[in-house]
Amino acid sequence: MASIIEPRVLKGFRDFLPPQEIARRSLIEKIEGSFRSYGFVPIDTPALEYAEILLGKGGGDTEKQIYRFKDKGDRDVALRFDLTVPFARFIAQYKQELGLPFRRYHIAKVWRGENTQRGRYREFTQCDVDIVGSESAAADFEILLVMRNTFKALGLEVSIHLNHRGLFNKFLTRIGAAEKSVEILRTVDKLAKIGEEETRRLLAEITGEDGAARILQFINCRGTYGEVLKTMTELSGGPSPESGRLEILRSYMADTGTGDSFVLDPAITRGLDYYTGIVYETFLNDDPSIGSVCSGGRYDNLAGLYSKDPVSGVGASIGLDRLAAALEDLGKPGERPSYTVLAVAAGGEEEAGRRQALAEQFRARGIPCEVLLETGGRGGGASADGKTDSKADGKALVRQFIQAEKKGIPWVLMPPQAPGGTLTLRDIGARQNREGLSLQDVIEIVGGGAKGQMRRPYDLP
Amino acid sequence: MASIIEPRVLKGFRDFLPPQEIARRSLIEKIEGSFRSYGFVPIDTPALEYAEILLGKGGGDTEKQIYRFKDKGDRDVALRFDLTVPFARFIAQYKQELGLPFRRYHIAKVWRGENTQRGRYREFTQCDVDIVGSESAAADFEILLVMRNTFKALGLEVSIHLNHRGLFNKFLTRIGAAEKSVEILRTVDKLAKIGEEETRRLLAEITGEDGAARILQFINCRGTYGEVLKTMTELSGGPSPESGRLEILRSYMADTGTGDSFVLDPAITRGLDYYTGIVYETFLNDDPSIGSVCSGGRYDNLAGLYSKDPVSGVGASIGLDRLAAALEDLGKPGERPSYTVLAVAAGGEEEAGRRQALAEQFRARGIPCEVLLETGGRGGGASADGKTDSKADGKALVRQFIQAEKKGIPWVLMPPQAPGGTLTLRDIGARQNREGLSLQDVIEIVGGGAKGQMRRPYDLP
Repeated sequence: MASIIEPRVLKGFRDFLPPQEIARRSLIEKIEGSFRSYGFVPIDTPALEYAEILLGKGGGDTEKQIYRFKDKGDRDVALRFDLTVPFARFIAQYKQELGLPFRRYHIAKVWRGENTQRGRYREFTQCDVDIVGSESAAADFEILLVMRNTFKALGLEVSIHLNHRGLFNKFLTRIGAAEKSVEILRTVDKLAKIGEEETRRLLAEITGEDGAARILQFINCRGTYGEVLKTMTELSGGPSPESGRLEILRSYMADTGTGDSFVLDPAITRGLDYYTGIVYETFLNDDPSIGSVCSGGRYDNLAGLYSKDPVSGVGASIGLDRLAAALEDLGKPGERPSYTVLAVAAGGEEEAGRRQALAEQFRARGIPCEVLLETGGRGGGASADGKTDSKADGKALVRQFIQAEKKGIPWVLMPPQAPGGTLTLRDIGARQNREGLSLQDVIEIVGGGAKGQMRRPYDLP
Repeated sequence: MASIIEPRVLKGFRDFLPPQEIARRSLIEKIEGSFRSYGFVPIDTPALEYAEILLGKGGGDTEKQIYRFKDKGDRDVALRFDLTVPFARFIAQYKQELGLPFRRYHIAKVWRGENTQRGRYREFTQCDVDIVGSESAAADFEILLVMRNTFKALGLEVSIHLNHRGLFNKFLTRIGAAEKSVEILRTVDKLAKIGEEETRRLLAEITGEDGAARILQFINCRGTYGEVLKTMTELSGGPSPESGRLEILRSYMADTGTGDSFVLDPAITRGLDYYTGIVYETFLNDDPSIGSVCSGGRYDNLAGLYSKDPVSGVGASIGLDRLAAALEDLGKPGERPSYTVLAVAAGGEEEAGRRQALAEQFRARGIPCEVLLETGGRGGGASADGKTDSKADGKALVRQFIQAEKKGIPWVLMPPQAPGGTLTLRDIGARQNREGLSLQDVIEIVGGGAKGQMRRPYDLP
C-alpha cells in the first residue's frame, strides 16, 4: 500500500468547518444585504495579478508580505494583499464604462505572508465599500452611515471615531511641523498601542519637546462633538473648509438621529499615506478593547498609479476575520451546524424515493429539509404510527434522533406506514412526538421558523 | 510626474463589472439556496496548500497546469486546481468531528494555468456538492435530484445522462477487455468530441476490431430507461448489483415524478479514474450543444491519499463560468446594473442629511434605496412640488433621471420642499411623475417590486 500524505494546511491558513462557515456566511450575507440596501454594487477582480500592478513603485512592508512568483509563462505575478489596490486599477481601467460617482462593494479573500502571531492569518477576508467620483460631504456621511447601520444589522452598537486629516495638517502647519506630517501622523496612529509616554518621546524626537506637547494637547482634546470641533478649529487657526466639513457632517448626524454613534477624535490619523480628508475607526461598544473592526477615510487620488486623471473617493473596510473572532469572544450566537429545519427519517431502501418526494413538499415551500441516511443498522425503517416495526427499527430511530440533535435539526418527520396514513413529528428539543398530523399540519408547525431562518436579513419582516 | 502603469489583468483572468457580478451572485445565491434546502452545509478551505497535498503522487496534466511556487518560508505550495482534492484532504482530517454520512457544498474559485482557447479561464468558480459516508442508492439519487432541481431553480430544464461504471466494467470483463478498462473508458468519454468513427479507430487499437464493434454496440444502445437497462443487463451477463442499483434509481425517479429528466446513457463514462459507481453529465434542454454543465459520480475511496480508511461518496460539480456563459448565449435575463429600487434625488449640500433620513425609511423596510450624488451642476436641488426651483435645478433633475435610467433604477423620489410637504415619485420607465404622495403611498408603490427582488429564491412566495 502506498504511503499516506499527512493531511494538513499551511501555517497561517485555516479550514472552515460547517458551523464556522455557516456563521461566516451569515455575517457576509448581512453585510452584503446592508451594502446593497444603500445602492452599492458588487465587483470582482482576479486573485492573481501582475506584481507590478499590485506593488506599484512601492515595496517595503508590502513587498515583504506579498505572495509573489513567476508563472509558467515567466510573468511576475502576485496574490492580491488587499482590495484597495485592485480597485484602483479597476477604476483606472473602467471609469468611463462605470460612470461616476460609483458605489461599489467587494467582499473577497486577500493574502499576506505576514507573521502569524496574535490571531493573524495569511489568508483573510475583507469587506470593502467605496464611493468614488464624489468630493461631497454627502458621500463622506454615507460611508459613515452605512458602516454604523451595517453593524446594527449584525446586532452590534458601535462608536465610530472620526477625524479630518486636513484639519490635523492645518494644525501642524500652524505649529511649524507641516513637513514632518507623515511621520507625525504615523506616530500618533500608534498612540493606543504604545501609550502616551512613548508617543510623547517619539514625537519629541521628530519635532522637539514643545511640538510634542502641543500635538498631545491637540490629540487629547475630549468632549462632545461640538466641543471638540470648537477646540480643534481654534488650535488649527480658525474656521476652514476642513472644520466646515466636520460641521456639516455633524448636521447630517443630527438629521438622521445618529449622533450617538459618532465621536470626533483628533487622535485618529490612520497610518496610510493616501488619506487626505476624513479618517475613522470603529469600536464595538460591547468591547472596545478588541480594537478597530472597521476603518477608512477619504482619499484624493485613488488610481494615480494607473491613470493621469485623479479620482477621489471615500471608503471603508471591515476585516471579517477580526469581526468573527470578536463576535465569538462576545459570545454572540451565530454558529449552527446546519440550515436544516426538518429531517425526514430514513426508511428501508425501497422507501427512499417516497421519502424524497415527501421532503420535496417542504423544500418547495422554502423549508430546508433533509432525508436522513441511516448507516448504523440494517433495514431500519421508521414510520409514523408512533411505534416502530421491531426492536432494530426502534434503535435505528433513536440513532436518527441523536443524529438530528447533533446537527441542530429541531424536527424529525416519520412518514406514514401505508400511503394515505398520518405523519408523526418528533420535537427533538422537547423529546416528544406529535402524532396523527397531516402534511399541512407539519408545514404550519415547522414553517414559521423556517421562513425566518431562510429569509435574507434585509427582507421585510 | 511619475510614469503610469498600464492597468490590465493577466491573460486568462477576468474582472467582473457590476452587471456581470450581480448576475453571477444571483446564480450563486440560487444554487446555494437549492443546496441548503437539501441539508448540504458549506465548508471552506485555503486557496493555497502544500503542493504535495494537491498533487499527491500524481503529476501529468495537473502538474502542467497548476500554479506552484516556493513561499517565503521555502515551502512548496500551490493554488488549488479543483475542490475535490482539498475536500478529500478535509475529510481525512476531520472525519471524526464531522460525523458520517456528511453532506457538504463548496462554492469557490480554483486556478489552472491551462490553455486559454475556447472561452476557458485560468481562474474559475466551481460549485460542488458531495455526500460522503453512504454507499446507498438513496445518496446516489439525492445527488441526481439536487442537480435536477438546482437547474430548475435557475429556470433551466436539463437532461441528466447517467451510467454505471461498474456495469460498464462487467460488460468489458465479459468481452475480455477488463484490463484495458481505464483506456477504454477514457476513449469512450471523448465520443461526443471526436465522433464515432474516430472512437472506433481508437478502440480498435486498444482492443481489436471486434472488441471495438461490441463496445460501440453497448454504448450506442438507445431507448427508454427501462429498455436501455434491459439491454445493458443482458450485454453485461445478466442481473447484478450494478444493474440492480440502476433499477432502484429508476423506481426513485418514478416515486418523485422526475423520470423525464433522466436518460440512461451507456456512452457516459467520465474520464476520471476515481469513479466506481454511477457517473453522469448534464445537458441543457434549451441547447445541449453547449456540452455538459454539471457532472459527477460515485467514488469508493475519496481520501485514500491521506488516510487508511476508505471513505466512499457521490458528488457533483457545476462549472459556474460555463453555466453563466450558456445563460448569456441563451439570452436568459440576469444582468442588471444595480439592486436599487428607489433613488432619492440629490439636493443641496444642506439637505443631504434629511435625504439620507428619508432613504433610511425605505431601507428599514427592505427596499434598497440610494441617495443620488449630483456632480454635474451647482446647487441642483430637486424637490417635490412637481416644478423645480430654477432652470439649473431642472437640468440637474434631468441628469439624475438619466443617471437612474442608466443604473436600471425604476423610481426616483423627490422630497418635499418644506418639512411636512408631499412627495413626488418619478416613474423612470413611463417618464411620468406621481405627485402629492405620502411616505406610505411610496412604500406601497415601490415596495412590492422590492420585496420580490430582495427575496432569496428559496423563500416562500
